[in-house]
Order: sequence, then structure tokens, then C-alpha cells
Amino acid sequence: MAMWNASKGFQNSTGQDVNPDLDSERKTASFSVERLTNILDGGAKNTQIRRKVDAVLQSDPEFSRENKYFQSQNERYEGAVRRSLYLSKKIEELGWVTDGLEQKYCYRALGDDLAFSVHQVFMKSILGLGTDEQIAKWIPLAEKHYIAGTYAQTELGHGTYLRGLETMATFDTTTQEFILNTPKISAMKWWPGDLGRTATHAVVFAQLYLKGKCYGIHPFIVQIRSLHNHSPAPGVTVGDIGPKMDFAQTDNGFLLLKNVCVPKENMLARFSQVLPDGQYIKRGTDKINYLTMVVIRVAIIRSEVLTTLMKACTIAVRYAVVRRQSELKPGDPESKILDYQTQQQKLLPQLATAYAFHFGCDYLQEIFDQGYAETKQGKFDLLPELHALASGFKVIATEFSSAGVEICRKACGGHGYSLLSGLPSLYTKLVASCTYEGENTVLLLQTARFLIKCFGMAKVGQPLPSSVAYLSSTRFGKCGAQEKRDFLNPDIYTETYKQRAFRMVEDAAVKLQTLIQSGTAQHEAWNVCSVQLARAAAAHSHYIIVQTFVKALERFEKELQIQRILKHLCDLFALHGIFSNMGDFLQAGHLSGKQSNMVTESYLDLLAIIRPDAVPLVDAFDFSDGNLNSAIGSYDGHAYERLFEWAKKSPTNKQDNQTFEKYLKPLFQNALSKL
Amino acid sequence: MAMWNASKGFQNSTGQDVNPDLDSERKTASFSVERLTNILDGGAKNTQIRRKVDAVLQSDPEFSRENKYFQSQNERYEGAVRRSLYLSKKIEELGWVTDGLEQKYCYRALGDDLAFSVHQVFMKSILGLGTDEQIAKWIPLAEKHYIAGTYAQTELGHGTYLRGLETMATFDTTTQEFILNTPKISAMKWWPGDLGRTATHAVVFAQLYLKGKCYGIHPFIVQIRSLHNHSPAPGVTVGDIGPKMDFAQTDNGFLLLKNVCVPKENMLARFSQVLPDGQYIKRGTDKINYLTMVVIRVAIIRSEVLTTLMKACTIAVRYAVVRRQSELKPGDPESKILDYQTQQQKLLPQLATAYAFHFGCDYLQEIFDQGYAETKQGKFDLLPELHALASGFKVIATEFSSAGVEICRKACGGHGYSLLSGLPSLYTKLVASCTYEGENTVLLLQTARFLIKCFGMAKVGQPLPSSVAYLSSTRFGKCGAQEKRDFLNPDIYTETYKQRAFRMVEDAAVKLQTLIQSGTAQHEAWNVCSVQLARAAAAHSHYIIVQTFVKALERFEKELQIQRILKHLCDLFALHGIFSNMGDFLQAGHLSGKQSNMVTESYLDLLAIIRPDAVPLVDAFDFSDGNLNSAIGSYDGHAYERLFEWAKKSPTNKQDNQTFEKYLKPLFQNALSKL
Repeated sequence: MAMWNASKGFQNSTGQDVNPDLDSERKTASFSVERLTNILDGGAKNTQIRRKVDAVLQSDPEFSRENKYFQSQNERYEGAVRRSLYLSKKIEELGWVTDGLEQKYCYRALGDDLAFSVHQVFMKSILGLGTDEQIAKWIPLAEKHYIAGTYAQTELGHGTYLRGLETMATFDTTTQEFILNTPKISAMKWWPGDLGRTATHAVVFAQLYLKGKCYGIHPFIVQIRSLHNHSPAPGVTVGDIGPKMDFAQTDNGFLLLKNVCVPKENMLARFSQVLPDGQYIKRGTDKINYLTMVVIRVAIIRSEVLTTLMKACTIAVRYAVVRRQSELKPGDPESKILDYQTQQQKLLPQLATAYAFHFGCDYLQEIFDQGYAETKQGKFDLLPELHALASGFKVIATEFSSAGVEICRKACGGHGYSLLSGLPSLYTKLVASCTYEGENTVLLLQTARFLIKCFGMAKVGQPLPSSVAYLSSTRFGKCGAQEKRDFLNPDIYTETYKQRAFRMVEDAAVKLQTLIQSGTAQHEAWNVCSVQLARAAAAHSHYIIVQTFVKALERFEKELQIQRILKHLCDLFALHGIFSNMGDFLQAGHLSGKQSNMVTESYLDLLAIIRPDAVPLVDAFDFSDGNLNSAIGSYDGHAYERLFEWAKKSPTNKQDNQTFEKYLKPLFQNALSKL
Repeated sequence: MAMWNASKGFQNSTGQDVNPDLDSERKTASFSVERLTNILDGGAKNTQIRRKVDAVLQSDPEFSRENKYFQSQNERYEGAVRRSLYLSKKIEELGWVTDGLEQKYCYRALGDDLAFSVHQVFMKSILGLGTDEQIAKWIPLAEKHYIAGTYAQTELGHGTYLRGLETMATFDTTTQEFILNTPKISAMKWWPGDLGRTATHAVVFAQLYLKGKCYGIHPFIVQIRSLHNHSPAPGVTVGDIGPKMDFAQTDNGFLLLKNVCVPKENMLARFSQVLPDGQYIKRGTDKINYLTMVVIRVAIIRSEVLTTLMKACTIAVRYAVVRRQSELKPGDPESKILDYQTQQQKLLPQLATAYAFHFGCDYLQEIFDQGYAETKQGKFDLLPELHALASGFKVIATEFSSAGVEICRKACGGHGYSLLSGLPSLYTKLVASCTYEGENTVLLLQTARFLIKCFGMAKVGQPLPSSVAYLSSTRFGKCGAQEKRDFLNPDIYTETYKQRAFRMVEDAAVKLQTLIQSGTAQHEAWNVCSVQLARAAAAHSHYIIVQTFVKALERFEKELQIQRILKHLCDLFALHGIFSNMGDFLQAGHLSGKQSNMVTESYLDLLAIIRPDAVPLVDAFDFSDGNLNSAIGSYDGHAYERLFEWAKKSPTNKQDNQTFEKYLKPLFQNALSKL
């Protein structure tokens, strides 16, 4: 478009041509953006490595995401496979080691444009569940992509409840083989990524039958496609499950087994073994393995969930200072929409949430590392607590983040509805995390079970694990806040969250107990308390995150500007949480109605206080424009110019307009004589 | 798949093969499903017409939606144009009259598979804003699709705030033409449907300049493409804005005008006229026209928003009785997921919401018809109230419904993430309604402005319009509920909602007043109160809907079974609203903490009471399988069989696997010698 040059002839200090409405926001930062970036990266050296990786990837046209929003499911899939294999080679060439930071940053930058994510799980499951011989046989092949694997657990009719899986593996002592079958349609494997069009092998989870007796779920390596020509192996029906809300690049698949024979040595046998005569031998415990999975869950929160929320905040905040709408003051030019309180109220709490979960991840990583060390030494005491923490954390991280991304998207109005903004795909991808890796309601109820157990232990004077020690408290008093600024005292609000969690756990426990004592069957009582139990578990997890953010502030005592802004965000996260769940806090009378008004006022005041730092706070996430892939969220703030440039590239503007020729032209001709 | 026959050899009373888990749900209905369907349709005769229309459409392969979820943006667009033109012909052949019920039901059945929706708005704007001559010239052409129109109002940089539009129309007295220009990139028309690839003409809104003076926004008919070959008219740049979160069938477009000349008679001149010498003449008032738009808004709520929520409820409730997961009672078979309280809590309130808004639409329609009659007679007194009602209603209808659809989708777990479930597109389509037809936050603040004005009038003893008469109350007492069943008394909970709305309006008004009295500028005071003002407006609208549902129950005094189930839904809608916004209700002390526990218990009890009627309640919406287009929500409940059948049809299972040949085969060959 020659009519306007995207460049406005305005250059910022680094020589970039930046929209003045965005540039001015960067001049008033109250803290060092670079320092905050380093903190988020875990040190200046990491920032350096990350930027190096980003630069390498962005200078390589193979990793361009330019056409992503225009591609079909098929193109996305093919691109992801090609790119992943190319990346593997590149990583090898550059000498970036497995599990090193460079690789981690590659995935941060390219995440949803890569394939083989479940191939990784295939390998991890062999490493965790296989014997040394099995590892030696399969891992080198998988590492080089000489085979492609998948992890086939979920079935069409069975998700979270693993015991309900129906796929059968029957051992035949005469042939020394397992015979795998899908006995019913509901038993078909369904959803595994990389299964639909790629995998040659699968770790299949099936009920093990020995001499007619069921020994429960076991893992088997099953070849499902020919390495020669990729045709399904005998007895195998396999394919792609079709279009989804997102993840077009992933070939989620179905798998149906009819008398598929697998040699005896293909059962992953680290923890259990079948002898030639069909005898079953159990050995060791797979608890350490279980913990590995929990640790992975936390890592996913950081790399997938949190990163996505941070991207959405970056796009929405930058857009909100270049978008102008209506007059705030009559007669003035139209205002930046971020100057409206209603817009601040949408975006700034999401920003605070992103920071809160960042420090939450740090904390969880720490105690998981500790738990892992203990578990390795055979001490399993910490496991239930770690499981409860990880489950609750996963739930609130995914719920808050996906809701937050959608709030950011909607706050960009119509342009947030265009795929070119980058926002719709952030939501449609992220919201899947509320379902995968443990459905959120199921996970909350698992955390609740732990809390109820601990509450019972406390009643009889038993000691409690540290994260739930507060359940031993006898009673809490009233909140001592006298005026609104008292709610900027972390002791005050942390106590308030603690009180809320305690009260909700106690209420659920008492109701449960009362029902059981009055003769209701235990399972029935649990069911009719489950809404309250789930809410109690969420309140507990919310409290832990607030507490963790407050503790994290101590680390910055010598960096006053950084500490100041993080303290504001911590306050905002905490007060927004009270404001949004006020009923929970008022119900038991810990807060009074008057105090709830103070919370509201203090919360709203914070919006105006943080507003001037909003752009520096998202700049600190340090996403490159390539990372964001957003027409409206780029660093230079030229939202409208970019939307127009990108829209013109849409295939809908290039395709022959068959529709006109076929359907419209014959009609329009009738108007020619009349106009 | 020959392995299992989709038929289980089980037939219901009508001879259909139905999943027994779904069939059994239908045998225990506490009311006549057919009667409730008739009520929802507005009479048995309407039901009959609707079913006739559905049958006609479904017997015609042109209207098959079978491949919808597999199609590209281009295919969706082409299909929609073809189908719309075909439908027009069919409607003519069948003699279905304009604005008749048959046509309405066509759109209900085919809604998002049709094109030309903004072409309709193009016609309505000419009918509303044009002179008789203009109507006589353009409408016949548009009706026959001899021209295709669009309504070009929104600009790249301007949405809700119409006064900010930048497109210019300058009158040239020498040529007697208007010269239209897009002065800046932000002034480019952006978003209009049917503009991207279809329209030949547009009603363009532009600032009218006469002799250098701006007279504000006026509408002009502009030809934008050749009727011969569809190429852009001189000075016009036009195209498609590219992919969106949904609405692939619609060619939303951009339009850029450079010295585009339009004859003088193309300014729509019903309410203002330009004389040959450039004199400006205003005549009459366009208020009646404005009301027409408000009425359309209400109609859209019913046909688009509510229908979508009802579809999502139907799919999710049916799926929840055929999906079994985990043991509710140890040792029992896996339970239907709808038997879990946590699942009931997700789905049943959405069902209640659908019924609440159904009766809400009835009520609004009624008072709008009345307002329309008065306005036609030149009485405009009702307008501000009607606008406030419609705005608030639009906001809560779209917010509750889009949130509700997404809750339904997530409640279907992984399968809800598959496009084949039908749920993702219900959400991605519906959520757009929070932004279009007035952005929700902006609308809430308009309603708030009316409420604040009325609150002020009440203070000085002036009479108030009926829907806000409660703002004249001096003070409310405490809630009188003594036990949980008291909260099943509509008088009690309606009063509670009223009290909440009053208190929130009062709080915002007092804060606003205090700020202004202490010297804060009015616009600044408004801004720092805006979060609370928006919430107060939502609380007001919520109260109106509860009140309306309660009133609607009176109509069924002679049909006890129907009244009983509707009363349960009304109670559930009301109590779920209190439960979910408990802070608002507790804050001012109208409810006590103890009473809030009663609400919770009463709310949870209702879930179990309504549970047995859940399937009959969604059956009453009476969507055909073709309407729903869901693999997991069909009437026969064969969710897994249909998912599998549909998945096999995915193009990803038919395309040549180039990816294997090109990228994988060379790698896999290396494993051949090793396995």
C-alpha cells in the first residue's frame, strides 16, 4: 500500500520505527525492564542464551510462521513434521545438548509448530517403564527418528479413569506372544498425538490377562505401521480423528487392534514381568516414575500455559495503548483504551496472574526437586502432598490462564477475533490444557481428598505436611484491617486467603461427616459434597499461590524498584482474587461488609498505580515479534498497518473468485440495464 | 466398520434404534415434552411449521452439513453463497412469504451456513434511511440479488464510537457529486460482512463536509465493484480481511476509497438532504429508526444467541448420559457422568439460563412492540428505558450464553474439543456476539448512565419508568428467610436480586457524587467509578431477568407439570446466580452468612431434583440431528459410533501421505535392518 508508509518517520532510541503512542509508554518505566527479564529467565546468562536461540531460529526461513493462520490442517501437519526433523538436525549441528537450555528455548519459540511431542512421551515411557535391555533396543532408534512412537492410553470411552480401560492383552503360552484386542468400540484408542498419520510404534496400555485372570493395566510396545510403506500392520486399523479446536499440526489418532500379536519381550517390564509359563512377577515400585510424571506436569505449566498467558498479555496491553476510542474528557482527542478503568480491570489482573504463576512455578520446582531426591532414596512420605499440590496448581494455572487469555482477546474487540491478532489460537490451544494431563474437576477432587484426610488427621492431633499445616488451626479471628491501605499488607491478605481455605475445607468436611453419621453411604455423601469439595481445593491452591508470591518478594529486598513493582502485582493478584470471589471471604464473617468495600477500593486504586508500567511489564516477557506472530501486538505498535498487510496475503484474496463467475454474475447481469 | 454395528438391536417406542442409556432417560419425564416444545415455539401450530421447514431442508442434499467441519474458509464461503441463492429460489417456489415463520425457521436451521446476512442489513438501512424514491430504485434490485450490498460503518480504527469515524464525503457543487475518501489507514472500512468478495454496493457511513464544514455521519450508497466483471470500481481498494475465529462462511472485508465520486442522489436522504447549492436540510427525527435497530437486537438474541446455547445444552446433556466414567459406588459399573454433582453443576444451570432468556425475550418483545407503537405516534418518552433494557439484556444474554456454551463444551472432556462434537464452533461463533452489535462493556456503561440518571431523579422525587421504579425505594430490610426452602420462594429471591441491584446502583451513585463534590472532574469521576457502574448495570439486568422468569410462571397455572418443572428451572437460575455472585449479596448485609449457606444447600438440592428431567428438557428444544450437526449429541445417543464414522471421513485420512514419502520414509529405512 503506497498510500501510507508503514514507517511514520518516527524512530525510538534503538533506531526502530515505533508508534509514538507505544514508544511514550516505554519512557516512563519505573524499573529496569532488562533486569526483570533476567529475573524471569532465571539469570542474565539465560536471557543471553534465549536471545541467541531466537536469533538463530528467526534468521532461518524454515521457521517462518508467516502463513500459519492461512494453512489447512494438512499443511500444518506436514509443516510441523518437516520443521521438527529439520530442527533436530540443526540442533545436532549446533551441538545443543539434550535437555539443555537451548533446546528448551527452541520449544518455547516454536512450540505449536512442531510435531513429535507424543513421540517424546513414547521415549519417556520406555525410559521409565522399560528394562535396561528394552531401553537399549528402542531408545536409539527413536532418538534418531528411525521409528516414530506414540503413547496410546486414552480410549474413545475412557479418559481419566485408567482402571476402566478396556483394551486387552492376553498371553499365549504356546506362542509366547501377547494378543492385543479392542473388544468394543469404546475401547478404541482415541486422541494420542502422532498416531493419526505418523507413528510406526505405540506404547499401548492394556489390561493384562494371564490364564484368564486380569492383572490390570500394563504397557506394551506394538508396531502399528510398516516401516517400508507405512501401511497398517496386520490386525491394525489406524487413522486421524479429524479437525479439532486447535492443534491442527498434531495428528491425533485412533487405533483399533484385532488379534495383534506382540512378542513377549515387548511388554515394558521394569516393574512387572510375565514368565514363559504365564506366571506374573511384580518387582519394585513405580512410585518414582509417578513422581516424574508430576514433575513433567509442572514443567508443562511453565512452558505451555504460562508462556501463552504472557503472550496474550503482551499483545493486548500493547494494542490497548495504540488503540484509541472515544473521548475520556469531552473535547480531547480519543483516548488510549488502556486509560479506561474498565480496560485496566480486564488486562492488568491477567498480567499479575502471569507473574504470580511464574513465581509459583519456581516454588513448585524447588519442592519437587527436593521430593524427587527423597523419593529416590526410597522415602515416599512426601508423595501425597506433592500430588495434591501439583494437581491443584495445574487446575488453577490452566483455569486462570485460559480465562485470562480469553479476557485479553475479548478486550481487543473485533480485532481480537481475527486470527491475525494471534489471540484466538492462543485461547483455543490453551483451553485444551483444562482437559488434558488430568481433567480439572477430577484433579480438584483428588486434591480435596488429600485435604479432607489431613483435616481429619488434624482433628486427632496428628502432624500435617507443611503446605496444609494451617488445617490444624483451631479458629481464626476477624480480619484486623481498619482502612483500605491495610489491604496492601501481605500479612493481612495472606491471612484472609488462609482463613477462606480453612473455612471451605472445614465446611465440606463437616458436611461430609454429618451426612455419613446420619447414615448416608460414604460414596453418596462424597458426591453430594463434591461441588463444595472442589471449591475448597481451588481455594487451598489459590492460597498457596498468594503465599508463594509474597515469599518471592523477599528475594528482591536489595532491588527496590523491582520489588516495588512486583509488590504491586502481588497485591493486585491477591486483591483481585478477593474482589472476584468476595462471597467466599464474607461468608464466614472473617471480612466485614465494610472491609470488603476497602478491598474493592484498594484493588481499583492499584489499577491506576500499575497502569503506567503496563507496557514495560509485558516488554519484560521479551517475546520477539516472531514469537508473538500477532498483527496487533508487535514491538513497534503498527497494528493497523500490519493487519492490512497481513490481510492482503490471505488466500481468500488470491483464489479465483469462482463464486462470482458461477453464482453471482448471472444475477448481476440483470442490473446492468437498470443502473 | 463391520466389527460393530452402529445398531445395537435396541429400538425405542418410535422404532428408532436408541442407546439404552439415553432411552431410559426419556421414560421418566415428569412433563409432556411435546407440550413444552409447543410453549417454546409459541404454539403447537408453530411447532408444526418448524418441523415442516426442517423436513423440507433436510430432504434436500443441498442443505447437508455433513462436510462442514472439514471445509476451508474458501469452501465455506462458496457453499454459503450457493446455498443462500438456492434457498431464495426454493422459498419463492414454496411461496414462503418474507418475514413469515417459514423463513424464520429456515434461518434457525441453516443460520451459519448462509451468506448475505449483511446484504439484509444493507436493505434494512435503505428502507430505514432512504427516501421513497431511493427505496423504489434500490430495494427491488437487492431483493432479487441483482446487486449485492453491504453496510460499511466500522473502520479499522473505529468501532463503537461512531462520532470518531474518519471516512469523508465532500460535496462538490460543480459536479453535484460527493467525493468519498479514506484519509488515513485507521479510516479504512474493516469488518463488514459480504464486503470481502461479494458486494457490488455498500451503504458507506462518512463524515459529510459541505463548504468546509463537517455535518457529522451520513450514509451514502457507493458502487464498489463492477456488475460486469466484479473488478473494483475506480478509486476503490477492496478485499477480504482473512481468517477469523469463526464465520468462515462470511467474507468480512476491507474497503478503501480514494476520490470515489457518488451522485448526489446516493446520499440516503430520509432525514437530511443536501441542496444543489450545498445547503444542508435536516428533517424529522430518526428516533423511530433507532428503535428498529434495538428491536432487531432483541430478535438476534433469540435467533442466534439463545438457539446456540440451547444446542450446546442438548449436546452436552445427551452426551453426559451416554458417557460413563469411574465408579460412583465402588464395585458398580461406571456411572453416567450426569450422575455426578460436579457435572450437574456445570450443565443444569446452563439449561436454566436458556429457559430464563427464552422468557426474557418474550417479555422484551412485548414491551418493545408497545414502545414501537408509542414511538410511531411521536412519543419518545420510552426510548431511554428501552435502550437501557435492550443494552443490559444483550450483555447478559451474550455473556451468560457464551460462557455457558464453553462450560458445556469443556464438560464433554476431550470429545468436546473435537470439531465433530459441534461444540467448538458453537462457542467460537457465539462469543463474537459479546463484541458485535455493541461491545458489551460499552453497552453496560450506557445502561449505567440511565440508571444513575434515574437514581438522581428518584432522589428529588421525580417518577421513574417502571423497570427502574425500585430505585425510588428508601431502604430495604434484611432477608426474611429462616430455612433453606424459603429460598424456593420467588418473592424472597426476587427481593434479594432487587436489593443487590439497588445497593450496587446506590454505591456507584454515591461514590460518583462524592468524587464530584470533592472536586474531581465529572469525566474523571465517571472513569474511576466505571468498573462499579458496569457491575451495577449487570446486576440490574440480572434482576429484570429473574423477575421476568418468575412472572412467566403465572402463565402455566393450569398446567401443573409444566409449571412445576419451569419453577424448578426458575429457582435454579435465581439461586445459581446468587451462589455465583455471593459477594454482591452479602456485602450490604441483606443476606447473612447463615442464609448464604441456605442458598448453597437449596441450589445444590435443586440439581438432584432437576437431574431426572435433564434429557426431556433438552429434547423439548426439538433440534433435529441435522440442526445439531454433532457426532456426540444426536437423538439416538450413539456418540462413539458416530465419532468414529465421521472421523474416518476426515480429509486427513484421504490425502496422500506425502509427509511419509518425503520426510519419514528415508528415516524409517534405517530401522529396517534392526527390527
